[in-house]
Amino acid sequence: MSQNFTFAIAGTDDTARAGVIETPHGRMSTPVFMPVGTQATVKALTPEDVHDVGAEIILSNTYHLLLRPGLEIIERFGGLHQFMAWEGPILTDSGGFQVFSLGHLRKLSDDGVTFRSHIDGSEHTLTPEFVVEAQECLGSDIAMVLDHCPSYGDDDETIRKSLERTHKWAERSLSAHQRKDQALFGIVQGGWATDLRKESAKFIASLDFSGIAIGGLSVGEPKQIAYQILDETIPHLPTDKPRYLMGVGSPDGLIESIARGIDMFDCTLPTRIARNGGLFTPEGRINLRGARYREQEAPIAKDCDCYTCSKYSSAYLYHLLRSEELLYHRLATIHNLRFVVRLMKQAREAILNGYFAEFAADFLGRYQATNEETRLAQKAKWLAAHRHWAESQGKPR
Amino acid sequence: MSQNFTFAIAGTDDTARAGVIETPHGRMSTPVFMPVGTQATVKALTPEDVHDVGAEIILSNTYHLLLRPGLEIIERFGGLHQFMAWEGPILTDSGGFQVFSLGHLRKLSDDGVTFRSHIDGSEHTLTPEFVVEAQECLGSDIAMVLDHCPSYGDDDETIRKSLERTHKWAERSLSAHQRKDQALFGIVQGGWATDLRKESAKFIASLDFSGIAIGGLSVGEPKQIAYQILDETIPHLPTDKPRYLMGVGSPDGLIESIARGIDMFDCTLPTRIARNGGLFTPEGRINLRGARYREQEAPIAKDCDCYTCSKYSSAYLYHLLRSEELLYHRLATIHNLRFVVRLMKQAREAILNGYFAEFAADFLGRYQATNEETRLAQKAKWLAAHRHWAESQGKPR
Repeated sequence: MSQNFTFAIAGTDDTARAGVIETPHGRMSTPVFMPVGTQATVKALTPEDVHDVGAEIILSNTYHLLLRPGLEIIERFGGLHQFMAWEGPILTDSGGFQVFSLGHLRKLSDDGVTFRSHIDGSEHTLTPEFVVEAQECLGSDIAMVLDHCPSYGDDDETIRKSLERTHKWAERSLSAHQRKDQALFGIVQGGWATDLRKESAKFIASLDFSGIAIGGLSVGEPKQIAYQILDETIPHLPTDKPRYLMGVGSPDGLIESIARGIDMFDCTLPTRIARNGGLFTPEGRINLRGARYREQEAPIAKDCDCYTCSKYSSAYLYHLLRSEELLYHRLATIHNLRFVVRLMKQAREAILNGYFAEFAADFLGRYQATNEETRLAQKAKWLAAHRHWAESQGKPR
Repeated sequence: MSQNFTFAIAGTDDTARAGVIETPHGRMSTPVFMPVGTQATVKALTPEDVHDVGAEIILSNTYHLLLRPGLEIIERFGGLHQFMAWEGPILTDSGGFQVFSLGHLRKLSDDGVTFRSHIDGSEHTLTPEFVVEAQECLGSDIAMVLDHCPSYGDDDETIRKSLERTHKWAERSLSAHQRKDQALFGIVQGGWATDLRKESAKFIASLDFSGIAIGGLSVGEPKQIAYQILDETIPHLPTDKPRYLMGVGSPDGLIESIARGIDMFDCTLPTRIARNGGLFTPEGRINLRGARYREQEAPIAKDCDCYTCSKYSSAYLYHLLRSEELLYHRLATIHNLRFVVRLMKQAREAILNGYFAEFAADFLGRYQATNEETRLAQKAKWLAAHRHWAESQGKPR
């Protein structure tokens, strides 16, 4: 385990936890939401903007950075922090999710996975060892192992095989990892079978990782199934390591998962929907394209302390969105990130002061979550678009 | 003339002038460059960003605001300043240039000009009186009269007719103007005929405007012709009113025009080319798409004091541009605006301290202006694209 990485629990409330993580680039309080900076930038924001919304750590994607600008460029700058001028902690994912979500563009073996670049069609191979080396080169504070993430709907046999591979890759990743100033997290997989999830949790927990992620959720399954998996997985995880739920970022999903004992989250959802007019309020997500916002002098969310709500009316944001103005993306992104980051801080306060259950009930009672049928349809559409995009881009040129 | 608008000359150096303009929303030092915020936003920047590059006034476009969000929305907010949260001075143009550059989408008479919206095909009529009323509603500090801007290549008869119309419209605009807290500027036209420019300068100078603009240049003519027109026009303008050259924003064009006695400028060029990879340096405009920037650790311009150059390498900007990241637009815009705003401040210092000729010779000797043939071809392409865009958008739906 990394010597420059510590996790301490500051308080618990039933199964919910509040903690502090120390990394070589600073500390963060948990539960924590990590804004996603896929291509070495949180879309539309400067590092100062990210800091100003209260974010304490960002996530960046090994897959994308590997292809562009390329590891050698980032290495020349001494790592990702310097390249993108973000001084706080960074977690890098392994690229596994991206490769597996690209569908037929890959060739899989026990050694690793070969795929074609969505940018220029060039062929690349991810092995557990290479992915560790790549992230050591990026210099992130927290690196993730390469895992095999099954698709929703895969049969039990496929899931079992992928799990065995994931576990072997976890061991190989640990053996390959050398940087003492970088933490390495393992990833629990196992699809939707309780016994496999339990087996995976126990296995990953037995290895010398600095933290443990739960992967393979939020890939198209109903929310209730995901919560059930969490309920059955978390009891088998150690209490003294941070628990990171990958790919969850809806306000209700965050609260439900914190209640079950999750400490860390990342998701493109808050930033992605913001750019398309989807903005968080305590009552639920609004669609800013609605005509009702055309003349609204009030900000998006009453009492919101973000830069956007402090300074601009809904009508102005509506105008920027309708006029396809670049400034819209920034103002909307700031609002949604501040919303989820503040929610994490509120949840932490509630945990430390013993009223998390009331806080969660109050928030979930007021927050109208996206209708589950609509949500699943949107997710399926997004996954399909994602694959289609990769395929259309992936042809050599 | 407006009682809240004053212009004082602080110093001259040969024909170059340094002054101070006071408006209800604050003062600016001249020569001054006005960043363009077409749709109530300087593209990709917040008001804080605009302030931080040193800009003291922005320009916004009546034509665009009229169509979207519509005057009634902005009026509801008490004007454009409040709507877009910019507290400094604003100059609004009259919409004339936009309407005339839209080609066949308009019907012209002595009363005004009727056109179809490029957004929804709806029909609108600009008259001198309506344009004044619209700008009073927007609450800009400086309003412009409606003028008839001929195209480069129009024959003498067409230009003479348009000039007569422009002069009548100038008188009607003055009669219609009521807000005492808003300055109204007249516009000199006259195409490329010395006698018509002289006649127009004398006529507009004889009216009770707070300032005088020179319009109808930078519309596709060679630079030397534009400079010749300035040489023949400016001696007929009063010395005690600010002189505003519309549509010029190339660094060499700014210096050449300041030398001839211009005080104010606006242009989309610095912000528009920035978004496409064209960035200013003291040696000339670079194209950031060039492979030489892929690994360059140095900022875009050595010794540049802008936020972008203070914090980011050329390689990072190159990566953002190549990856089509939103943050690129903001960082590039900040750099180019800071470049021209700083150039104005340096020119002012040179004028006040009596070394403007040396400053200008030094700057122009070092700055490799865009090749004139290339520039004219680019301008023609832009004008054509502009018309084509308007036509493709202008169909009712």
